[in-house]
Amino acid sequence: MSIAQQANAARQAAHFLAFASDSTRARALFTAAEHIENQARTILSENAMDVQAAKEAGLMAPLISRLALSEEKITEMCAGLRSVASLPDPLGKTLLATELAEGLALYRVSCPIGVIGAIFESRPDALTQIAALCVKSGNAVLLKGGREASRSCRALFAAMDRAARESGLPIGWAALLESREEVAEMLKQDDQIDLIIPRGSNEFVQYIKDNSRIPVLGHAAGICHVYVDRAADVGMAVLIAVDAKTQYVAVCNAVETLLVHRDIADAALPALAEALRAKGVLLRGCDRTRAIIDCEPATQADWDTEYLDLVLSIRVVDSTIDAIDHINRHGSGHTDAIVTDDESAANLFCARVDSASVFWNCSTRFSDGYRYGFGAEVGIATGKTHARGPMGIDGLCTYKYKLLGSGQTISAGVQYTFRSLNDKCPLEDSARC
Amino acid sequence: MSIAQQANAARQAAHFLAFASDSTRARALFTAAEHIENQARTILSENAMDVQAAKEAGLMAPLISRLALSEEKITEMCAGLRSVASLPDPLGKTLLATELAEGLALYRVSCPIGVIGAIFESRPDALTQIAALCVKSGNAVLLKGGREASRSCRALFAAMDRAARESGLPIGWAALLESREEVAEMLKQDDQIDLIIPRGSNEFVQYIKDNSRIPVLGHAAGICHVYVDRAADVGMAVLIAVDAKTQYVAVCNAVETLLVHRDIADAALPALAEALRAKGVLLRGCDRTRAIIDCEPATQADWDTEYLDLVLSIRVVDSTIDAIDHINRHGSGHTDAIVTDDESAANLFCARVDSASVFWNCSTRFSDGYRYGFGAEVGIATGKTHARGPMGIDGLCTYKYKLLGSGQTISAGVQYTFRSLNDKCPLEDSARC
Repeated sequence: MSIAQQANAARQAAHFLAFASDSTRARALFTAAEHIENQARTILSENAMDVQAAKEAGLMAPLISRLALSEEKITEMCAGLRSVASLPDPLGKTLLATELAEGLALYRVSCPIGVIGAIFESRPDALTQIAALCVKSGNAVLLKGGREASRSCRALFAAMDRAARESGLPIGWAALLESREEVAEMLKQDDQIDLIIPRGSNEFVQYIKDNSRIPVLGHAAGICHVYVDRAADVGMAVLIAVDAKTQYVAVCNAVETLLVHRDIADAALPALAEALRAKGVLLRGCDRTRAIIDCEPATQADWDTEYLDLVLSIRVVDSTIDAIDHINRHGSGHTDAIVTDDESAANLFCARVDSASVFWNCSTRFSDGYRYGFGAEVGIATGKTHARGPMGIDGLCTYKYKLLGSGQTISAGVQYTFRSLNDKCPLEDSARC
Repeated sequence: MSIAQQANAARQAAHFLAFASDSTRARALFTAAEHIENQARTILSENAMDVQAAKEAGLMAPLISRLALSEEKITEMCAGLRSVASLPDPLGKTLLATELAEGLALYRVSCPIGVIGAIFESRPDALTQIAALCVKSGNAVLLKGGREASRSCRALFAAMDRAARESGLPIGWAALLESREEVAEMLKQDDQIDLIIPRGSNEFVQYIKDNSRIPVLGHAAGICHVYVDRAADVGMAVLIAVDAKTQYVAVCNAVETLLVHRDIADAALPALAEALRAKGVLLRGCDRTRAIIDCEPATQADWDTEYLDLVLSIRVVDSTIDAIDHINRHGSGHTDAIVTDDESAANLFCARVDSASVFWNCSTRFSDGYRYGFGAEVGIATGKTHARGPMGIDGLCTYKYKLLGSGQTISAGVQYTFRSLNDKCPLEDSARC
């Protein structure tokens, strides 16, 4: 089938998925977990071939480790599928209920978006996670994984597809794309696809936006900051900075720039530098930083760089407002943290830093759908519309309005009451199968 | 100032607006209403020049009537500003609160999107309505009205701008664009503008999408349907069809196609035709319709046409499922209604019609932000992401996550509790001014 045909099949499937019952959707995921466990040997041997090819192609070690599956990772993957299956049903929830006039009641009810196009990197577990969130939220999905993971993706997709069909999901519920040409074709299907979710670099997300009329929910760079306020506990600042920089360097919620209030710089910078260097971090500082600790000079470009590596830039600032201003100018709106014992500084920072996640006295590494309690995540959205920050199943839903009347017209007139109702939309429960 | 400079000023203003107190934002709107009332004579005389020029240019009567202001419309406009000012504050609302672990609490808190670009038609009251919703929601806005309304827009904008400055809103809170070249320039400011809201034809919205990387929330065509089910009350069906078609023909929530179940066609079509014709509606029917009533034949193109005129296409269908299928194929996802006394048919229809608004036994003309109780509307969104359907102040808000900890790191580990909290984010109240 061509991509246009697959997108069309997905659109048809979406009409059915929208009213599939929660138990049907959940069954597909429980069954998928079983099939993946039963097919573990095949999946691991396909993955081993991907890993072998990636090594031969000279892929770097952190990327290889994200690509490689193991029995343990398969167990986690299946636990993840079961946990998404067990989430509360996100569909058919009454989000707003208003009596507009006597006998005329308005309900805002959650429903799936429709057809999602998801493009992600070479982590095979991204496929099962995204597909599971789409099934649970009643969306059809076109999936495109990283080229290096193609055999692994094919094997995992086959197991999920079989489970979906056995569980009564419609043919077309999902399709696996394999080439860049197919992605280019997918981006043209604005009649059939409702949302494109690309995960990757800023440049990649921009490329997608430039080449499609379909709304794009980008999951792009994280230039995250930790700001050590003058009222910070230095010991806590050290623990948070070290964790945010070194616990997992290759991820978007790792910190890239440390901002330090001038009044605490003399006390905090030596301790921070010592602890970070002990973990192998290369430091680049502004002039005022370098007057206190010995390190490489930071250039203007450093403030706008996502290293994803054991490198950290450090800048001394004059005030919380200056820290906020630096972050709003150079950050990527992902996750930024303040370390302080002063609640009013925390308040100011969290109100005025224009980022999806603003943290007080904890590591930026908590910015994650699983850690936020969403069960799993599609990614971390860095835009400001639709969904923002770690995006779970809610971000894959929209809503429709149901207005239930008894013959009302504008011509005849109604007496508006605009009274809040507490009931659930009465039209919801029985239309599912 | 260039458009890039104005967009940059809007971005700076947005950082302040985000933490302006509700009373500051409301004061700006109450003051704007006063200024507009005081300036009514100037505004009306500027509007009269717009209307004169539009008549000379041969603009059609319905467009002239949308362009023309009157003392009564000014009174309504000011009442609208005061009603938006009095809406509950949409900012700083705690939308979700979860204890992630002991001493680590996550809050999802509503906040403004940032900078909005709004492009709308030649209705001067659209300017005050959109600007008011932006102020109330703490967003900066670049406004571009229809060319025919340029003098009216300038006069209204001047009054609102003076009020905003007197009330303490930051310079740059809004700008008025005047030319297509300025719009083209605005579409390039993807670093500064967070959302473009175009109201107009499908072609216009597509043009905007094709020419910008900024997310676009389109308010486009309404190909709305009324489906007369076999269990319909024919008298009610007639009232609803006549209202939906004729009460205001030039609007997007007017009906364009009537679908009639075959079992009720003989009984309903003559009554429908008589009542519609009495209002001057030209009917175009499918073959089965024309076997019952005498009317022009409908062509395939009729099912995909938004007439915005006293024309209605009619099709006889075999079942509710066929009606749903027709709507999902030919509709624009705006508003569709079923007339029936059969709850299960209503249930099926409302569940499976993939439109922003699905109505049971009432006119499609209720699809409107004011009538939905939102106080005012930015427009009616026909896409499926971010906001859907009549869009009030909520659609101009996003959220941020605030995570309040006590030194937690991933390295040290935490015991996740994922316990729902009932409290409001403690960091919200005191950071506003």
